[in-house]
Amino acid sequence: MFAEIIAVGSELLTPHRQDTNSLYLTSVLNDLGVAVAFKTIVGDHREHLTSAIQIALNRADILLLSGGLGPTEDDLTRECVAQALRLPLYRNPELLETLRQRFAARNLQMTQNNHHQADQIQGATILPNRNGSAPGQWLDVLYNGHRRLIALLPGPPLELQPLFAAECKPRLAAALPPSHLARRQLRMTLIPESLVDARCAPIYKTFPDVETTILAGNAEIQLHFSCVKPTQAEAEAQVEAAADAVSREMGDDVFSSGGESLEEVVLLMLGVRHHTLAVAESCTGGLIGKRLTSIPNSSRVFLGGAVAYSNRSKTALADVPAYLIDEHGAVSDAVARALAEGIRRRIGSSLALSITGIAGPATPRGPDSQKPVGLVYIALTDGKETQVKELNIRGDRERIRIWAAQHALETLRRRLL
Amino acid sequence: MFAEIIAVGSELLTPHRQDTNSLYLTSVLNDLGVAVAFKTIVGDHREHLTSAIQIALNRADILLLSGGLGPTEDDLTRECVAQALRLPLYRNPELLETLRQRFAARNLQMTQNNHHQADQIQGATILPNRNGSAPGQWLDVLYNGHRRLIALLPGPPLELQPLFAAECKPRLAAALPPSHLARRQLRMTLIPESLVDARCAPIYKTFPDVETTILAGNAEIQLHFSCVKPTQAEAEAQVEAAADAVSREMGDDVFSSGGESLEEVVLLMLGVRHHTLAVAESCTGGLIGKRLTSIPNSSRVFLGGAVAYSNRSKTALADVPAYLIDEHGAVSDAVARALAEGIRRRIGSSLALSITGIAGPATPRGPDSQKPVGLVYIALTDGKETQVKELNIRGDRERIRIWAAQHALETLRRRLL
Repeated sequence: MFAEIIAVGSELLTPHRQDTNSLYLTSVLNDLGVAVAFKTIVGDHREHLTSAIQIALNRADILLLSGGLGPTEDDLTRECVAQALRLPLYRNPELLETLRQRFAARNLQMTQNNHHQADQIQGATILPNRNGSAPGQWLDVLYNGHRRLIALLPGPPLELQPLFAAECKPRLAAALPPSHLARRQLRMTLIPESLVDARCAPIYKTFPDVETTILAGNAEIQLHFSCVKPTQAEAEAQVEAAADAVSREMGDDVFSSGGESLEEVVLLMLGVRHHTLAVAESCTGGLIGKRLTSIPNSSRVFLGGAVAYSNRSKTALADVPAYLIDEHGAVSDAVARALAEGIRRRIGSSLALSITGIAGPATPRGPDSQKPVGLVYIALTDGKETQVKELNIRGDRERIRIWAAQHALETLRRRLL
Repeated sequence: MFAEIIAVGSELLTPHRQDTNSLYLTSVLNDLGVAVAFKTIVGDHREHLTSAIQIALNRADILLLSGGLGPTEDDLTRECVAQALRLPLYRNPELLETLRQRFAARNLQMTQNNHHQADQIQGATILPNRNGSAPGQWLDVLYNGHRRLIALLPGPPLELQPLFAAECKPRLAAALPPSHLARRQLRMTLIPESLVDARCAPIYKTFPDVETTILAGNAEIQLHFSCVKPTQAEAEAQVEAAADAVSREMGDDVFSSGGESLEEVVLLMLGVRHHTLAVAESCTGGLIGKRLTSIPNSSRVFLGGAVAYSNRSKTALADVPAYLIDEHGAVSDAVARALAEGIRRRIGSSLALSITGIAGPATPRGPDSQKPVGLVYIALTDGKETQVKELNIRGDRERIRIWAAQHALETLRRRLL
């Protein structure tokens, strides 16, 4: 049993707007143990919409439509669902009266086009919309001999969400066998996706009831496990077992098993070990600071740092000797080391991280002019010992900065293990 | 003639992830005068994907698929397109060799599963992917007697976008009748959307050939104008006229009419006026630094700054006297002023910006404990005069930080007008 979501609206086919209702609807469906197999986005176009509905009725047990219930001529969802199901559409006088009262209560004139909103598909249940004028509709029908549950929902999220929660969720729950979903997530960084998959697939495949998805992006790999069972305990036990088995294989590469981001994990570990942190960022220009301070209460362990973008600021904020920059270049082992050690002394933290690198697109003038774009040095110091890493990161400016920040945080996490 | 976009990946059917590639692809297609009629999102599921491809081939002239080209067993796009077209798939030895070299150059082991990425659909052109291991494929075929242009594209946006621009856009342009799209964009910040619309709608409605869209988010309002005409000159003239009329109405509120971001505009204005900038960020923790340094060559005018998150770092990096913090609290007019003046002196820039505020969720202890979440002070100094603004920003931690950074950059922009 699975669901399809159809988002209706020509604006959702422009470069500027995106359907977001499906994320909410998917989350509620998943809670009920139903997976979404297809999402279709279609414009306010009679033939396109009717055919998209027919395709969905042929392949999905549950069909949720959002949008196209308004008063304008472009609002075609009611008509097209009726046409796809070959059911008549009629104007419901009670609904018309409710609409009239709604407009009167707001001292608004009800124009003729609003009458469309009183059109009801034969056999449909009307779903009251407390936050807008377009009511939803619910159908439980046979289509070519298959049972189909269909909801027509208003497009604005502030109307759709309460309506779906109040009217559709209980109807779906009553129609479905009892089932419960459990999820787990493992996160890793700086490892190729193919390597993670080669090591983990043989393990997670031994859990046929658990659905496993690998996601990769922004230097991070996520393994998502989910399982649907008649009871929550069974579902939890299955995802737990799969996640634990994979976690054992990947060992310390797994930085998070509870959904925490890398910056959250690093802050937690710093706190547990009674460390404080300062950073000096050159090529990342505040990216690490921004990530750490996006977490509430990060101020307990993250004391601050320098955006040491120019040579002068490296000296002024982190006491990097000017001769070091002249001799070795700003992007060098020596300057990375001096940045970390200097900012630690200046801020008085127990640990400090620094990053200096060439993010591109051009190489800088002066002593760094012969060095390649993507060359990055990271240093981590505790005041006694300073560890420096040289990296060569491929890609454009944005990617180099993201990966450099990720390398720095991961270096710190491994130091704290 | 229209297009369908199929985004492939089970993760896109969860509540956590959303297809975003289609926004970029739609924008390029629109540039070529092609509208998108359907978007389909389907999981890594052989039958579902194959049938979605067949449906698309029956209804759309151009079919763009993103995702499912990676090395894992879940990556089925090549196979399913071949199956839908009833074309054989074969392993291309040259591609395999290119992959081998790619892995060798990175000192990585090429595991067996990577070999899939060398599978080529008969008749397809291979589209080189400079930013990842999975190449794209291009097909120009007859399907049930209709010409179909099909592109298989990698899922990660950093791979998809340059590949599509370099390899697919010229191929599509060559295959399509000439039709030209012109766009203009006006950007404003810190003004309510409803106010912008009330002032601008009566103006842009007098340009019926120009499509106008208002977007609001992250403290910014964007007005997008687009027009399609047989010649570029006609299209340009129309959007130009509409954008100019609206721009005259909004005056200095418009910070950009060429698509530049606020940080780009500020950097440009600083450069033109021979200014240099330093920043001291408390509650934004590096967000302004990160935004400014995301722009290439920002180092010409942005010298660096302090992530002055703790009280100690305010003193250590920007020479804020400790007694000021004790007396007024870190979130105060006096400390904002001292931060800006201190960081300017320390870095030696001509201008300096500072931000200090309570981003929440909790209020800090000590002298700031009676102040509300959302209270933010911004200071801007040129060494002679220091301007301080007090703001009360509504919303959660993330929103407060975004709006605070935006207020600071906008204050600087207005100072430079």
